[in-house]
Amino acid sequence: MNLSPTERRLLLRRVLAGTQCVSPAAVYDPISARIAQEVGYQLGMLAGSEASNATLTAPDLVVITLSELAALTRGIMRACDLSVIVDGDHGYGNALNVMRTMQELEHAGASCVTIEDLALPRPFGSAVQSSKLVSIEEMTGKLRAAVAARTDPALVVTARVAGLRVEGTEGTAARARAYAETGVDAIFITRLETLDEIEAIHGSAELPIIVGRAPERLKREELLERGGRVLLQGHLPLQAAVRALHESYRRQWNTANGDELMT
Amino acid sequence: MNLSPTERRLLLRRVLAGTQCVSPAAVYDPISARIAQEVGYQLGMLAGSEASNATLTAPDLVVITLSELAALTRGIMRACDLSVIVDGDHGYGNALNVMRTMQELEHAGASCVTIEDLALPRPFGSAVQSSKLVSIEEMTGKLRAAVAARTDPALVVTARVAGLRVEGTEGTAARARAYAETGVDAIFITRLETLDEIEAIHGSAELPIIVGRAPERLKREELLERGGRVLLQGHLPLQAAVRALHESYRRQWNTANGDELMT
Amino acid sequence: MNLSPTERRLLLRRVLAGTQCVSPAAVYDPISARIAQEVGYQLGMLAGSEASNATLTAPDLVVITLSELAALTRGIMRACDLSVIVDGDHGYGNALNVMRTMQELEHAGASCVTIEDLALPRPFGSAVQSSKLVSIEEMTGKLRAAVAARTDPALVVTARVAGLRVEGTEGTAARARAYAETGVDAIFITRLETLDEIEAIHGSAELPIIVGRAPERLKREELLERGGRVLLQGHLPLQAAVRALHESYRRQWNTANGDELMT
Amino acid sequence: MNLSPTERRLLLRRVLAGTQCVSPAAVYDPISARIAQEVGYQLGMLAGSEASNATLTAPDLVVITLSELAALTRGIMRACDLSVIVDGDHGYGNALNVMRTMQELEHAGASCVTIEDLALPRPFGSAVQSSKLVSIEEMTGKLRAAVAARTDPALVVTARVAGLRVEGTEGTAARARAYAETGVDAIFITRLETLDEIEAIHGSAELPIIVGRAPERLKREELLERGGRVLLQGHLPLQAAVRALHESYRRQWNTANGDELMT
Repeated sequence: MNLSPTERRLLLRRVLAGTQCVSPAAVYDPISARIAQEVGYQLGMLAGSEASNATLTAPDLVVITLSELAALTRGIMRACDLSVIVDGDHGYGNALNVMRTMQELEHAGASCVTIEDLALPRPFGSAVQSSKLVSIEEMTGKLRAAVAARTDPALVVTARVAGLRVEGTEGTAARARAYAETGVDAIFITRLETLDEIEAIHGSAELPIIVGRAPERLKREELLERGGRVLLQGHLPLQAAVRALHESYRRQWNTANGDELMT
Repeated sequence: MNLSPTERRLLLRRVLAGTQCVSPAAVYDPISARIAQEVGYQLGMLAGSEASNATLTAPDLVVITLSELAALTRGIMRACDLSVIVDGDHGYGNALNVMRTMQELEHAGASCVTIEDLALPRPFGSAVQSSKLVSIEEMTGKLRAAVAARTDPALVVTARVAGLRVEGTEGTAARARAYAETGVDAIFITRLETLDEIEAIHGSAELPIIVGRAPERLKREELLERGGRVLLQGHLPLQAAVRALHESYRRQWNTANGDELMT
Repeated sequence: MNLSPTERRLLLRRVLAGTQCVSPAAVYDPISARIAQEVGYQLGMLAGSEASNATLTAPDLVVITLSELAALTRGIMRACDLSVIVDGDHGYGNALNVMRTMQELEHAGASCVTIEDLALPRPFGSAVQSSKLVSIEEMTGKLRAAVAARTDPALVVTARVAGLRVEGTEGTAARARAYAETGVDAIFITRLETLDEIEAIHGSAELPIIVGRAPERLKREELLERGGRVLLQGHLPLQAAVRALHESYRRQWNTANGDELMT
Repeated sequence: MNLSPTERRLLLRRVLAGTQCVSPAAVYDPISARIAQEVGYQLGMLAGSEASNATLTAPDLVVITLSELAALTRGIMRACDLSVIVDGDHGYGNALNVMRTMQELEHAGASCVTIEDLALPRPFGSAVQSSKLVSIEEMTGKLRAAVAARTDPALVVTARVAGLRVEGTEGTAARARAYAETGVDAIFITRLETLDEIEAIHGSAELPIIVGRAPERLKREELLERGGRVLLQGHLPLQAAVRALHESYRRQWNTANGDELMT
């Protein structure tokens, strides 16, 4: 409403450079973002899974298009003053597609775009539970493309390391180091399990860390000491809305239509 | 998912030609529509106020565009098998704009489009509480345009009479009669207060009636006897979702961030 | 590509404050804008008629939606470095709609938005050749809304006076004066016939003038002396493309398919 | 305007089942499609390269999104009565993405969607001139997904074999056979050089062939005898429009602005 895209990006940069580890509101559409702001939030997170759910009621399998993600981002930014971290998945293809991802999400007003090293969409023939990463060479090329493609230097570019459970702590820390050298502003860690892991990654990358949800046993203070500046809290708000909708429709259905089908 | 747009339109036509007065789920985005379907609904209603809210978090003042309404409709139809009545407001302009409204909402998959006789967006100089109707001549021209513009004959076109509290029962019944002669399939009544009103309008138009919410004292059976085949139930589901979101964000805010601002 | 929306707006402001009367390229899609830039243009004009043609192959009757105009504008801005004057027609409704028009076209990257005082879309019952203006009170309200709605102060807001052939020189000059007082940056004149007209309007408004095409007998130098800073040159490029396409398809049709229908 | 999507698909099916080898108009936007229709065409082709050019003025490197291609397709179908073959590239990802590609392009009104076996977007580390194909297993999975995803059985699904210059005649014919077994309706051949090639592919697949441009020495009659039912003619119309625009802007530039920059 009042804050420009650049002002929102600078707010996020202050968070990343600050001394707290804050949690953004998990927002997924204009209404949820507006409510989060009214509650007091200044920071929001648009997860890929929630974007797919809101747009397509589809699971998180990257069938949403970049255009749809950008339109959703724009709708959210227009409805609120939050700074919003947008999950750019793998950047929707190769390094050229990453550049378009940056171009479109920057135009949509995103405060931060994350690009991850998981091979997406799931390659042909891979087992459902497996996670395949792209090579360090490919990923650093994509990240350099992302950094080069932004036109507002305030826009935060974040490399998401998805491989902790695939390549282990050391391998992931090495990736984080290589990613940091491309000029990204932060590292986003998924599937964190231990403090050693964040410590190794933070020590290696020397960049602020966004923690994509951590086990309860890892305390905010402990994450903060190891570079954690943003800590996600999962998808409870969307789940609460779904539950409330279900109950409300169920109640109205029973009142109005009984159990008989209408035709 | 499985039902074609035509099949959904024919289902609504069976409801209008049937012997029950059913209530659609008030849906406003893909997620809500999907949930309504899981609860058992086969019929949904996309109100203009909810479309504005979902798209822009804006009040019902017709600042949403036809393209936005069509995109929202398409998103809803893609996510579910409901037949959906779409509030086409005034048809977004003159009779030519009505034709585009029909073209776009038909393409988006709407099962029914309502066009109303209220002068929208609010004309310059009119008092906030006042309601100004377009002339019968203009409205019948718009309705003829709507009927002519549909290419799927199964698509239901509904004339919405907004003037009960402006022109009274007799005037509104006369309008309904004139509207019926354009070939529309149903009459949508807003701001109904008494059974006499629906009886007069139904008697005059000789078309099935969609009741846009009635006072509790008017019973479903009484509306049914007077032509009522669809009875809206207001906006409780959206309100429930908003409340649930507010509570969820508030709870997470208190846990994570306390009351201090993050910057 | 390289110039930010603000930089492009500032370039147009330099033109308006300058000592020349320049002609923008009439652009209507990304390809035409890119070519115009390669030819040397720095300024483009997206006319309402060309936007309708490019989007819908429809005549200039305001059946295009604001969302479509914004998407076209965005596509053009993304493909080139031109500063582009965008024809915002009447602002797509009342003063609230004008605010959305500004919001969307500013986001799309427009360098200038024109809002005109013709009653659009054509009101019910008006003769095809007639031109009805909205009242001065309504128009100044809309222009104040436009000025208030921009968030980038560099964005140029232009009032388009459409009434020279309706209300005459004096009436139009009075309108231009009233419009100027709302804080708009320029006056756009349509259907100019004589130097006296532009002189009167410029003298009254004391703002730079954009001339929406003038008869050949009015020389650029003469318009410049009377405040003209931008002079449109009509729709020749689009016409040339249409002619070339027609010839090319005709030639290929004759070669490949002869005159027989394919079914 | 008048023909439904299904009617247009059936027309294309009659062409494929017919006794002629016809050439579609190469269309790239609503205006070009409308002109092609006026010239007499009933069939159009929307190439990926032209879609990228029209939308982004970008080369054919799959930086266009599925949503953009679908919007362009919809705009073209709305403006004309042509049956249009739409280049769906690789289906924008894995088999799930292929399903969305079919869903979106079917909704947009495409008469035919082609899915090709080239690995797109260009994989990391591949040489610029190289062409890498996906495996037969992956491609047949994608084609089965495409066939399963259409809801209008009249929609034509075409497998595009891109590997003639990579795997040779025999390998490509074997692929065409495997692709045919998935239930696709036609084979699209790119980079055809000899009659032996089309003969081998047609003999193997036993499906009608769409020839994506052939050297002049291969005659239409000869292609027809070997299964050719559609023969593309390249991108001359777009090139003609580009040339006409360039000349028109150049002429206006010289008249109006001389060679001096405007700032």
